[in-house]
Amino acid sequence: FSLVGKIATDDYVGFTFFVGCMAMMAASAFFFLSMNSYDRKWRTSILVSGLITFIAAVHYWYMRDYWAANAESPTFFRYVDWILTVPLMCVEFFLILKVAGAKKALMWKLIILSVIMLVFGYFGEAVDRDNAWLWGLLSGAAYFVIVYEIWLGSAKKLAESAGGAVLSAHKMLCWFVLVGWAIYPVGYMAGTPGWYEGIFGGISMDVIYNIGDAINKIGFGLVVYNLAVTATAKAEA
Amino acid sequence: FSLVGKIATDDYVGFTFFVGCMAMMAASAFFFLSMNSYDRKWRTSILVSGLITFIAAVHYWYMRDYWAANAESPTFFRYVDWILTVPLMCVEFFLILKVAGAKKALMWKLIILSVIMLVFGYFGEAVDRDNAWLWGLLSGAAYFVIVYEIWLGSAKKLAESAGGAVLSAHKMLCWFVLVGWAIYPVGYMAGTPGWYEGIFGGISMDVIYNIGDAINKIGFGLVVYNLAVTATAKAEA
Ligand SMILES: CC1=C(/C=C/C(C)=C/C=C/C(C)=C/C=O)C(C)(C)CCC1
Ligand SMILES: CC1=C(/C=C/C(C)=C/C=C/C(C)=C/C=O)C(C)(C)CCC1
Repeated sequence: FSLVGKIATDDYVGFTFFVGCMAMMAASAFFFLSMNSYDRKWRTSILVSGLITFIAAVHYWYMRDYWAANAESPTFFRYVDWILTVPLMCVEFFLILKVAGAKKALMWKLIILSVIMLVFGYFGEAVDRDNAWLWGLLSGAAYFVIVYEIWLGSAKKLAESAGGAVLSAHKMLCWFVLVGWAIYPVGYMAGTPGWYEGIFGGISMDVIYNIGDAINKIGFGLVVYNLAVTATAKAEA
Repeated sequence: FSLVGKIATDDYVGFTFFVGCMAMMAASAFFFLSMNSYDRKWRTSILVSGLITFIAAVHYWYMRDYWAANAESPTFFRYVDWILTVPLMCVEFFLILKVAGAKKALMWKLIILSVIMLVFGYFGEAVDRDNAWLWGLLSGAAYFVIVYEIWLGSAKKLAESAGGAVLSAHKMLCWFVLVGWAIYPVGYMAGTPGWYEGIFGGISMDVIYNIGDAINKIGFGLVVYNLAVTATAKAEA
């Protein structure tokens, strides 16, 4: 139990790992336990939201301990988490638009792009830090294609044809990807060497990533949850 | 399992950590497993009650171990717990009054005030103990604004317009905040240096906080639970 003893009261990075871990656990309980109160066609979406926060809860548990023991970035666990949760978010996008007739091809396109984005990011952070700027650029390119796909590509047309609660949930998720996901490249720049060094001077990469995760995983899930609540209420009225 | 062997039979602080941990776990099981027996519109409220005790159960688990290992106040974990559970209690307030037309602005106001209250408290207990009286005063000011908001502000009018079971649940919760939450500043004074030193001489801060948590987290949840039971019975009659 030495671990429990080690957290210093001014270890703000450790603090965000602890708060993040617990918030992910609580969010998972929330999604898992509430899914059956809504229309069956939304249940899988709420369940996937819960899986995303559940996977994150487990990795935050590791990352918390890793941080407490080594006081360095748990890059490995961070990317294990992302490589599972980010594709699941692409599945969420698809599930929401499925009601409007989305094809699986859209889902696979988003999944592949997101895996490319993360693999390049991992190379920059962990394998070839000297060229972190280059890997970040390549990763960022994949990110932009994702943003383009959902904001202006076929996903947009599907959402518009569905209208109503599906359209407004889709819009919210698009904003999450554009603004919420943009938190990650900022963290990356704060934590890797490059011409951009010092711009975000002082702020810890892990704190930035942890804030990003809280917003994107829990917030994203709540948008989906809210869609289920609204659509169920409308169907019953 | 050396931990289990270490608790001395006269370690009353450790005793309250153990009892608190188990009580929170049992309360979580109770709320989670009973939520689906009541009207859907109350389920989220019961679920949130369960999340509050669940989060507390996890932190009591840490605090118990921390206390057993170090025999000192687990300030860090205490505040990680509060920073999550107190805003969730503000969400509860909102959920109950939502049926009466409460706006999200009320919820955010309460959440922000409660975060301010806790951040100041943490500074006094952990960062700048020499000026604990000042941080406590600032924290107490935020606490008073919360009390004012719910007893005399817009929340009161909403509760009155709803009447019936909602009004009486709201009243009970108001009393919890006024009397139940007032236990915490007493614990704070018992555990920090200041002109008030010795007034509560001898009583351990952690015992006071643990009693406060048991009353506020479980009691608060039971009030919400009771509202769901009463309102469901009435709706079915
Ligand atoms: C653009 C970019 C990145 C983007 C990362 C993103 C967008 C991660 C999203 C993670 C999510 C949404 C997790 C939540 O479950 C990296 C890899 C940091 C490398 C630098 C460039
Ligand atoms: C006023 C005041 C405080 C109030 C703390 C409160 C009111 C905590 C409530 C916690 C609850 C309700 C937890 C249950 O989940 C502090 C921070 C001790 C600092 C001293 C002044």
